[in-house]
Amino acid sequence: EEIGNFLDQQNISDVAELIYTVPEHDASIIMYMSIHRASGVFKILETATQQDIIQKLPPGKTAELLNELPPDDRTALLEDLPSDVVRELIKLLNQEERKITLSLLGYPENSVGRLMTPDYVYVQETDTVQRVLEIIRRVGKNSETIDVIYVINDKGELLDDIRIREFILAAPNKKVSELMDNRVISLNAYADQEAANEAFKMNNRVALPVVSNSNKLLGIVTIDDILWVATEEFSEDMQKIGGTQALNEPYLDIAFFKLIRKRVGWLLALFVSELLTTSAMTYFSDEMQKVAILSIFVPLITSSGGNSGSQASTLIIQAMAVGEVTIADWWRVMRREILSGLVLGVILGSVGFLRIQIWHELIQHGFMHMKDPEIRTAYLTHSTAVGLTIGFSLIGIVLWGTLAGSMLPIFLKRLGADPAASSAPFVATLVDVTGIIIYFSMAYLILTGILL
Amino acid sequence: EEIGNFLDQQNISDVAELIYTVPEHDASIIMYMSIHRASGVFKILETATQQDIIQKLPPGKTAELLNELPPDDRTALLEDLPSDVVRELIKLLNQEERKITLSLLGYPENSVGRLMTPDYVYVQETDTVQRVLEIIRRVGKNSETIDVIYVINDKGELLDDIRIREFILAAPNKKVSELMDNRVISLNAYADQEAANEAFKMNNRVALPVVSNSNKLLGIVTIDDILWVATEEFSEDMQKIGGTQALNEPYLDIAFFKLIRKRVGWLLALFVSELLTTSAMTYFSDEMQKVAILSIFVPLITSSGGNSGSQASTLIIQAMAVGEVTIADWWRVMRREILSGLVLGVILGSVGFLRIQIWHELIQHGFMHMKDPEIRTAYLTHSTAVGLTIGFSLIGIVLWGTLAGSMLPIFLKRLGADPAASSAPFVATLVDVTGIIIYFSMAYLILTGILL
Ligand SMILES: [Mg+2]
Ligand SMILES: [Mg+2]
Ligand SMILES: [Mg+2]
Ligand SMILES: [Mg+2]
Ligand SMILES: [Mg+2]
Ligand SMILES: [Mg+2]
Ligand SMILES: [Mg+2]
Ligand SMILES: [Mg+2]
Ligand SMILES: [Mg+2]
Ligand SMILES: [Mg+2]
Ligand SMILES: [Mg+2]
Ligand SMILES: [Mg+2]
Ligand SMILES: [Mg+2]
Repeated sequence: EEIGNFLDQQNISDVAELIYTVPEHDASIIMYMSIHRASGVFKILETATQQDIIQKLPPGKTAELLNELPPDDRTALLEDLPSDVVRELIKLLNQEERKITLSLLGYPENSVGRLMTPDYVYVQETDTVQRVLEIIRRVGKNSETIDVIYVINDKGELLDDIRIREFILAAPNKKVSELMDNRVISLNAYADQEAANEAFKMNNRVALPVVSNSNKLLGIVTIDDILWVATEEFSEDMQKIGGTQALNEPYLDIAFFKLIRKRVGWLLALFVSELLTTSAMTYFSDEMQKVAILSIFVPLITSSGGNSGSQASTLIIQAMAVGEVTIADWWRVMRREILSGLVLGVILGSVGFLRIQIWHELIQHGFMHMKDPEIRTAYLTHSTAVGLTIGFSLIGIVLWGTLAGSMLPIFLKRLGADPAASSAPFVATLVDVTGIIIYFSMAYLILTGILL
Repeated sequence: EEIGNFLDQQNISDVAELIYTVPEHDASIIMYMSIHRASGVFKILETATQQDIIQKLPPGKTAELLNELPPDDRTALLEDLPSDVVRELIKLLNQEERKITLSLLGYPENSVGRLMTPDYVYVQETDTVQRVLEIIRRVGKNSETIDVIYVINDKGELLDDIRIREFILAAPNKKVSELMDNRVISLNAYADQEAANEAFKMNNRVALPVVSNSNKLLGIVTIDDILWVATEEFSEDMQKIGGTQALNEPYLDIAFFKLIRKRVGWLLALFVSELLTTSAMTYFSDEMQKVAILSIFVPLITSSGGNSGSQASTLIIQAMAVGEVTIADWWRVMRREILSGLVLGVILGSVGFLRIQIWHELIQHGFMHMKDPEIRTAYLTHSTAVGLTIGFSLIGIVLWGTLAGSMLPIFLKRLGADPAASSAPFVATLVDVTGIIIYFSMAYLILTGILL
């Protein structure tokens, strides 16, 4: 009991820290605490840790804890569990909490509805300030926040939101209607959670009301939950950009074989696609054997396409993730990227051309030794033709990489897929195959009759 | 004036939207509005738009606007401007605001101090609830938030934070000391902004107090600003992972040549490094000419290293960005990644080996035609040796890519650089050169006496 008292005195973040330090005692720590404080700690834990604790707790304690959890945090826990476990856990809830939970889980994944809590303070237009303060005193204890009070009419439609400071600063006999500015930002329960993020950034609110399609007030979303969602979203996007499936668990906590499973899928898919480069290279093997110098530039050429493609795709994924670019902007993006690709391609192409000329000079003047006689001849006698082949190939490949990289996220979004799936490795692989074809075609055009 | 009234009635997010739609009228829109509302809109605009407006406004209006802006938003604006412009703008501030601004700008970039606002409500332990409510009524109008009230002693040291709901729910003659729980989470003004993000996620607060090293209360940070910081941080990280310098402006708004400048740096650096592959390939050109089949697998081999490296590096960058992995974890990460690299390498290596065997069978039984006689012979007579070369090379390269990719972010952080600089293209380039060396060394080991 003394331990319990001690734990109850600590900040929830410190208790959470303690749980992460001694994960084997996580359930005992929760057991020792008063149920109210335990719920405060529990709700800020990682989902994986929460699940671990739920498994270890005796059923009675699980029931107590689940009923005490705020509805939004309960939804967050349940939505990541297998459906049979969810069914068992929902049975532990009392009637009222069960009803709330089922309705919240009824909203689609990643919708604002899933972040909602129905615990808020609402008043009517005709109430006085004094009456509002009484309502707050009565129901405020159980509200997620009392920083914003919502005004509704008899039909339950949302009319306005008023910050609590207005009530404190106002005379007690003023009417709510006198404090209203009839400006209210609300979120649709079916809207994507990213819309909520945007709305919070653009409006000075710590909570926003959530309404149905007919503007009925359903609940509120608080900004702290948005901070969690944002971190989760960005983590997912980053992992996908790196060519991994979203882990949904901290890197150091995820089980080793789960980690492998999340990584091997894309890696294998890309490997199999990359097998096409082998076919392309086989197709051009004659040319490479005839003109030995061609083969030595292959990695340079393909990687330049991959690098410019990775740049372009992450730029667009990022811009789409924060809402700066939408599908409708595809043409503006395409125009920009064609120009960017050309400029970047010309810069890299020129450096590539120069590189060949410098080697030409170095070999000619004996500053560099080139043992392979064929490559030596190519540098000495055909440096301009070889240089132009490399230069123009780079322009073509960088342009293509940039274009493919920038359009792929938009295209994926258009298909209803996640733009972040156009990962850097994915784009690099796509560009590798085409890069080889562009390169050897360019060689054909320029070197036929000279070296080929 | 009618326009002004109309604009004043709109939500700030709607006016901001309008400004983005007609950017040529941005300054006029701000001019039309009452200064208080104008400041509300101005502070949620993108930095680039803010700077544009400041340039267009007449000096008198700029002065008015700057003085009206909340100190934290003013700091955010000024920190992105060139220092001579900042000096000019600071001259426009009245004495009090100037003092505040200079002190906020005195904190290091990316420190919590830069996000602070000094407008908050503080009380003493001995005050009664009634007195606190009077203080709130008096100074609350100018506070960034009154959701949390801070308790300090005579020395200005922070004792506790109490939510306003506690005061509303308490009897008027109660003492502040009776409401205190002596639990307070505070941020150090010199701490990194990422620490603030973590603190907000782990504690149910809409604002956190900022203290000096000696626990003196300096100001508060509000959660809405943290949402902005988080978005900015993640955008930066993503862009860096893609191999671009942080844009600091929306993709569609940034000037074209600025966009090129942000992209060409890394692209050129990587291109020049990638020139090393040309040297490596030249070094092994003899082997490629002798054993034609070797060259056709080069893109497959290097890209597999690049892909596994990109995976590993973004996983670790992401884990470091959200604080799940620190430098101290390097050994745990290394152990995990050596194992991951081995498992992933063996999987890809096996597929690579199988691929050679399948081609062997297809060619042998006439299902596939291979025009190049040398490559045909290699597939027909030495498929096991070639397959083992590819297979073991893949194990080595995937292992090396995974290890290099995962250690590079930690190493960069250790050097004081940004882990996100170990971008997917950077890692891919690093692995390309070493991949070629690993591949041909493996060929040497296995194929000498057989094909070489
Ligand atoms: Mg949670
Ligand atoms: Mg989720
Ligand atoms: Mg309102
Ligand atoms: Mg909430
Ligand atoms: Mg919450
Ligand atoms: Mg996403
Ligand atoms: Mg590559
Ligand atoms: Mg701002
Ligand atoms: Mg900044
Ligand atoms: Mg406290
Ligand atoms: Mg603030
Ligand atoms: Mg703010
Ligand atoms: Mg960063």
